This record gives sequence, C-alpha cells and structure tokens, in this order.
Amino acid sequence: MTLAERDAQTFLYESLADNLRGLIDDGTFACGHRLPSVRRLSRQERLSPATVLKAYETLEAAGLVEARPKSGYYVRRRSDDLPEPPSRSRPPAAATAVDVGELVVELVATASRPDLVPFGGALPGPELLPITRFKRITASVLRRADAYSELDIPPQGAAPLRTAVARRMLRTGCRVAPDDVVITAGCLEALNLALRAVARPGDAIGVESPTYFGTLQAIENLDMRAVELPTDPDRGVCPDALCEAARSGRIRAALLMPDVHNPLGGIMPEAHKRRIAATLGRLGVPVIEDDVYGETHFGEGARPRALKAFDEHDNVIYCSSFSKQISPTMRLGWMLPGRWARRVHVLKASSTIAANGLAQAATAAFLEQGGFDRHLRRQRRAFAANIDRALDGICRHFPATTRVTRPRGGYLLWVQVPGVDARALYHRALAEGISIAPGRLFTAHDGFRDFFRLNCGHPWSPRLEAGLARLGELAAGD
Amino acid sequence: MTLAERDAQTFLYESLADNLRGLIDDGTFACGHRLPSVRRLSRQERLSPATVLKAYETLEAAGLVEARPKSGYYVRRRSDDLPEPPSRSRPPAAATAVDVGELVVELVATASRPDLVPFGGALPGPELLPITRFKRITASVLRRADAYSELDIPPQGAAPLRTAVARRMLRTGCRVAPDDVVITAGCLEALNLALRAVARPGDAIGVESPTYFGTLQAIENLDMRAVELPTDPDRGVCPDALCEAARSGRIRAALLMPDVHNPLGGIMPEAHKRRIAATLGRLGVPVIEDDVYGETHFGEGARPRALKAFDEHDNVIYCSSFSKQISPTMRLGWMLPGRWARRVHVLKASSTIAANGLAQAATAAFLEQGGFDRHLRRQRRAFAANIDRALDGICRHFPATTRVTRPRGGYLLWVQVPGVDARALYHRALAEGISIAPGRLFTAHDGFRDFFRLNCGHPWSPRLEAGLARLGELAAGD
Repeated sequence: MTLAERDAQTFLYESLADNLRGLIDDGTFACGHRLPSVRRLSRQERLSPATVLKAYETLEAAGLVEARPKSGYYVRRRSDDLPEPPSRSRPPAAATAVDVGELVVELVATASRPDLVPFGGALPGPELLPITRFKRITASVLRRADAYSELDIPPQGAAPLRTAVARRMLRTGCRVAPDDVVITAGCLEALNLALRAVARPGDAIGVESPTYFGTLQAIENLDMRAVELPTDPDRGVCPDALCEAARSGRIRAALLMPDVHNPLGGIMPEAHKRRIAATLGRLGVPVIEDDVYGETHFGEGARPRALKAFDEHDNVIYCSSFSKQISPTMRLGWMLPGRWARRVHVLKASSTIAANGLAQAATAAFLEQGGFDRHLRRQRRAFAANIDRALDGICRHFPATTRVTRPRGGYLLWVQVPGVDARALYHRALAEGISIAPGRLFTAHDGFRDFFRLNCGHPWSPRLEAGLARLGELAAGD
Repeated sequence: MTLAERDAQTFLYESLADNLRGLIDDGTFACGHRLPSVRRLSRQERLSPATVLKAYETLEAAGLVEARPKSGYYVRRRSDDLPEPPSRSRPPAAATAVDVGELVVELVATASRPDLVPFGGALPGPELLPITRFKRITASVLRRADAYSELDIPPQGAAPLRTAVARRMLRTGCRVAPDDVVITAGCLEALNLALRAVARPGDAIGVESPTYFGTLQAIENLDMRAVELPTDPDRGVCPDALCEAARSGRIRAALLMPDVHNPLGGIMPEAHKRRIAATLGRLGVPVIEDDVYGETHFGEGARPRALKAFDEHDNVIYCSSFSKQISPTMRLGWMLPGRWARRVHVLKASSTIAANGLAQAATAAFLEQGGFDRHLRRQRRAFAANIDRALDGICRHFPATTRVTRPRGGYLLWVQVPGVDARALYHRALAEGISIAPGRLFTAHDGFRDFFRLNCGHPWSPRLEAGLARLGELAAGD
C-alpha cells in the first residue's frame, strides 16, 4: 500500500466513523444496539471490510462501541450521560423490628402476573436460563433406574450434588469437602437455617441498608431484629460501622451480600472482606454470607473471591443457590454451615427434612456434564447488555434529578427519583400494567421512600422500552 | 346332588379343613402365607374345586384365613395369640423442653443405610409406591412446553395442584376451595408454618404421648415447649385431659394426629373429634392436625373423617403430604391455614418461598389422571398384610411379656418389652445390621425407655423375618 493509498483509506474510515458517531449521537443507533456486521456494511457502503473494521475500531477506542466476541459491535452507554449514583446510606443506628411482610406478599403476587411489564420481581427472564438443556437432563435422570427409588435422600443432600457444589466452590476461593455442604430448598432456606443456628429470638442482626426484603422478612419472622448499617452502593457495607457494631455488642451476627448486592449491585473490595472476616472472626460475631448473585459479576475475568475465602476463624456461613443460573422453580440451594454443622443438620431435619430428590439428581448431572461456565458467561453478557439498555432508557426518560446505581453484576438497578413517593408510583405504575419494587421493602426503618428497584433480567424489547419510558413520565409527575 | 352325596362332600371338605387347620396350627402355613390356589389344591388332592372352596370358606368363617380379592386365601393372625397392647400413657403434667435432636439425626443417618434391615425409618418400601407411573407422568409433564418456564410459582402453590388437593379433601369430610390450600415442602414444613402461625417462642403445645419425633423436634427448634397428654394407643389423646389443659391455659395450641397416629396407629373416635373441635374452638386454642397417615386406614370402607371436618370455629389447621402415597423424595405437602392464611403466606414467602415446580405439576397430573384411589387400596391391603406378618413374628420370637399395638392403619408397630433398655437394644441391633427407632425419641420427657417403633412398610421377606427373629432374641437378652 502506498502512502497515498493509506491516506485514502484513513480518510474513508474516518469519514465512516464520523457518520456512525452522528447516528449514535442522535439516537439512530441507541445504547445497546448492534451495529451492522462488517461484511454487510462493507457491501452496503462499497468499502473494503478492512476499512469498515478500522472505523469500528476507532469508535471502540473512543469508548462509543464495544466488541462482543462472536457477536459484533454494540453501542455503549456513555458514562458522562449517566445520572449520579445514590449516595451512601445513613440508616438510624437503633435496631428495628422489621415490618414488611404484607408488602412483600403483595409484591410477590403482582410479580407473578405475566400481563405486567416485569420490573418488579428479581428473577431473570426464562430466555436467559438453560431451560431446554436442563429439561433434557432431567428427563435422562428420570430414565435412570434409581431415580425416585433412592428413598432416603439424607437431610444434608444427595452426595453427587454435594460433590459438584464442593468443586464449584473453588471458583469462590473456598476449598471445601462434600461433607461440608448442606443442600437446601433454595438460598432463603439456607439463610433461615443460618440465622437460627447463630442467633435467637430477640437478637439483632447487622445488615446492609438497603437490603433484600427476603432477608428482612426472615429476620422479622424469626423474631429477631435488623440493625441496618451504612452501605456504599458500589463497595458494600461500611467496614468501620460493621466492626464497631460487632465490637459494641450491638449485633449478635451479620448477614451480608458482599458480591453483587441485591438491590445495589456493588461488590465489596477484597481489603474490606479481609478486614471484616478477621475482625468479626476475632470477636466471634458470625457472618452469614448471601452469595446468590456472585456468579453474575460483569466482565470476562474470574469472579470475585467470596468473603468466606478470607474466613480463618470458621466464622462465616456461606449460602447460595441455583435459582438465578438454572431454574428458580427448582427451589435448590446450598450452604456451608462450618462449625454450626450439627445444629444446621438438626434444624434442617426438623423443618423441611430434605430438598427435592429429582432436582438434586438433575442438577448434579447438569453440573457434571460441563458447559455451565459457558452458559454463565453468556448469561452475564446478556445481563450487562440489559443493564446498559435500561440505564440508557433512564437517561432519556427520567427526570434530570434521578440517581441510579452502576451495578457490577446481576440485573437489578436501584433508582432514586428525589421527592417522588415510590409507593404511590408503584400503585400508579401497576394501574398501567408495570410492576416495580418500591424502596420501602428494602429497609426495616421508614426509609428509601423515593427509591425503587428495577429488574432488568428480561431480554430487552420494545415492550420493556415503552414501559420504562412510561415509568419515567409517571416519576416526573405525569 | 343326593343327601348321601352332600354328606360325602361335607365329609371331604371338613376333613380338608381339619388338615389345613393343623398345618396352620403347627406353623407350616404361618400367618400371612397364601394357601395354595383352589385349582392347584383340587388337582393335588383329587377333590372338586367346589369342595376345596368350601374348606377354605370354613376356615375363613373360623377367622383362620382371609380372602383377598384376585389374590387368594391368606392365613390370618389369631387375635387370642397376640400380646396385650400397651396401656394408656401417663406423661408428667408439666411442659418440658424437648431434647431429641441429636438422637433424631443419628436415627435418620442409620435409616438411610440400605445395608440395614429397615425397621427404623417411617418410609414405605419403594415397591409399595407408584414409582414407575409417577416417573412416566413426570416425563410427560417435562415434555410440555410450559414446564419450568412458568417461572413464578406463587408461594401458595401452583393452581392445578391446589385444585386437585381441594377435590381430594372431600374424602376427609372437608369442603375447601383451591384458594384455601397452601402447598408446602412436605408435611413437616406445614407443621412448622402452622406452629409459627399460632404460637410464639416459649409457648406450650399439647401433643399426644408418645408422638412423632419430627413434631417434637419442630417444637424444640422453634423454642416452644411440648405438653404431653395421656393417650390411648387405639383411640388417641384423652379428650378430658386435652380439654382441661386448654381450659386451664396450660397449652397455647395442640398438635394432634387423630387418624392413624405415628407411632401408635390408633384412630380417634368421631365423638372425640367432635368434642375436641367444639371445646378448643370455643376456647380459641388452635388445633394443628397432622393427617399424613390418614389415607392408610385399614379396611375397604371410607376413610375416617378428619378432625378438621368437625371444625365449626375455623380453629383447626389441617396438614398432610404425598410422601407416604407417591414419593417421599418429592418433598411435597399441603395445609389449610384457615384464618391464619395471611400469616402463613408471609411465613412461607420468607422461609422456602415455594415448593419445587416440576413436582407440583407432576403431582397435579398424577391426581388428575385417576387411578390414585385404586393405588391407595392396594397399598392399604399390602400394609395390613405386612402388619399381620410382623405381629405374627412378634408372637413367635419375642418375650412373653411383650406388648404391641393393634394399628388401624399405616405400617408402624409400637412395641414394649418391659424392662428392656430400648436405646441399648437399638445399639445392639444396629451392630447386627438391624435398625429400630427407640421409644425415647417419641417423647419430650424421659419416658418410653422400654418401647421401640417398628417400620413394617416394606414387603415382607425372609430377610425381614430373620431380622425380626433376631431382634426378639436380643430383646430377650441374648
């Protein structure tokens, strides 16, 4: 290629890049949209594929688009457009009797209505779950002679599933044996068993503020109290505040979601994990770790190491589930009860006895057969793209004062529209066929009144886009 | 037929009947054995089929054998041989902190060992469950497009299963709507939810003495206390004692198994049910009814009406499951929470959220497709025959002072060998590969030390017979 030729090509791809930049700026290619393939655009514009590729690489270097392996180039959201994230929470210091039960039952009832735009619940869309493959494996497990005739699933769970779980725990930085694992009827049962193992009625439990309402409900219904702690949306609970609460005896235990918090989406830095594990371990204030979203972290690298990986005092009970990755209707989770193992076995045997046998056998087979990591990678990319689309929609449709989190994983956004009564917004939106989860659910004190949680776990669609736009209008007081 | 011919035939069949009586007496045909078919014996003895039939009918009229439809004639146990049943229990009046958890975990661990003679657990043998048919239906439900994609099973349970349950409840004498039903992860979860709905930590719960250890454990682990009440093995809890305990405020609620009690096998007379429902209803002392064995009543007639059928005060919470009839590894039960519905919904949503979706869909299909009643009849007959065989074995192998219940359903025997330490017997038997459930498990006070429970829910076999014989020797101090 001569110098002149090279200049000509530079001119061509720079012109093309400029044109595309204009189309992105005016929203013709909105955030999350895929650009035409290199081959198609080269045919359409009568340019060489190399020139089109160069143009795309220019846009990528400018942070306007991103390459997704084997999929193409996508328009990125621009961080300077984004509303501010909410500030660190400042909950009241006193323990509070939790009282959100009826509100939760109301939300759950609306979350299961297929006629609603599904921003309210916290389940991913079925399209992002490996349903067909899991059904096929379940059918093959059913054909095996021993399924359902193994009458005695021990309360601790079937051995093959405990082995598969122990193997997966290596990803979290934890080395455990199959006998350390207890299979449960979902993560929430694990959290209940853990709470009952480490605390008693009347005891105070330290939690993030805001936090998952299922946790708050479990604490309420075990006659315990929640002590909410200042929490940074991006970095999790404030370690100073947590350690002080443990030292002063204000809390009997802590229940935390260090990796991909619900509803905040933050990930606790390793230094905080190390400090919390060490300090609370020394003080003998047990930590219950809810890691149900840990596998949904964004980015192609390894997942963050769990808090449990830093636990040198056998003081952390780890809990997780397959609900977000395989199927929520299986109701299958697990926990590492550590030194509370005997107590947890007794509690499990006296509450639900054991988890569904077929689900245990099918999940063990699913994990053995491989491909789970590939599925997780695909799922994470889809969640990240959905979050981008939703953030873009919020930029365009919501009041300028709106604040919203920058989740580091998962598919949940925590949105604040200052001054708006989110409970009233919830009812107005519901009347128009849109469900959201009002912020009041995520706290034991009377806070987060102008917050709500948005579920972005369903594949983006014109219906979701329209729902989000209408929600923005309603939030603006229309 | 002339008179002489008739006399000759009478002589022939009476002689045959006498011979057979001798063979039964000396144990050649032991209790539970099938006599040769009419055709075979008529060929063998060169007698007409009518004569053999007459001989069998003579033995049947004498109570020595019984006809089983489409199966033949079987040797019955003789009630005058049987040891006495245990007498009515006289537990201490004070409420007791329950403490059997570790013992139960130990028992459950041994109960799931296939190398042991299975007298310890409380599950029927897989041969007596409709496993093949249920697997086929599960596979067909899996093939349906919507299975596992119905992501939102409401905490209350899937509507088709609640409808099928409401229909089945008619057999218990209860008219309920699908919306009155809550699907649970087995009956024990239902009992836990019911206890949490009607009582609080520290409260006293009236129970039969002895009673199912799972119930005692649940009470213990909810920090409640058990008040054991005098109980007749055949007729259940003493209504005077129960009503007095309710009137005096000694109990906050009662948890009873009126129909086919575990471990006693008794059925409460209707008059007692009526009185208990009325009195405790007037006093506002809630009754939790555990009906998990109600469908296993012996005899071809209708099942006994549930206590709930006599409840005119909306004061009885009914709980049951499919574990004994379809599959225990499904972990699927149900409850009728009545006026505590809102509270139970909230508790369920904060503990296990919902039961396994596939198990719910498959069970609903199983119940819809019919044949369930036929299966139950077959199962009941098999259980009754097993109980006969085990009672016969106890007659022959156990010390003369032994006492044993006459269950009216189910497959459990409650055995007393006066003076024998049943916990020590449990360990000696275990060392010889035989599991039993020591009586100490079935009480919160330190009683029933010379009692144990025998599971007779497995098809009778030489292995069970030999295990029972050895157990009798061990009980005799060998």
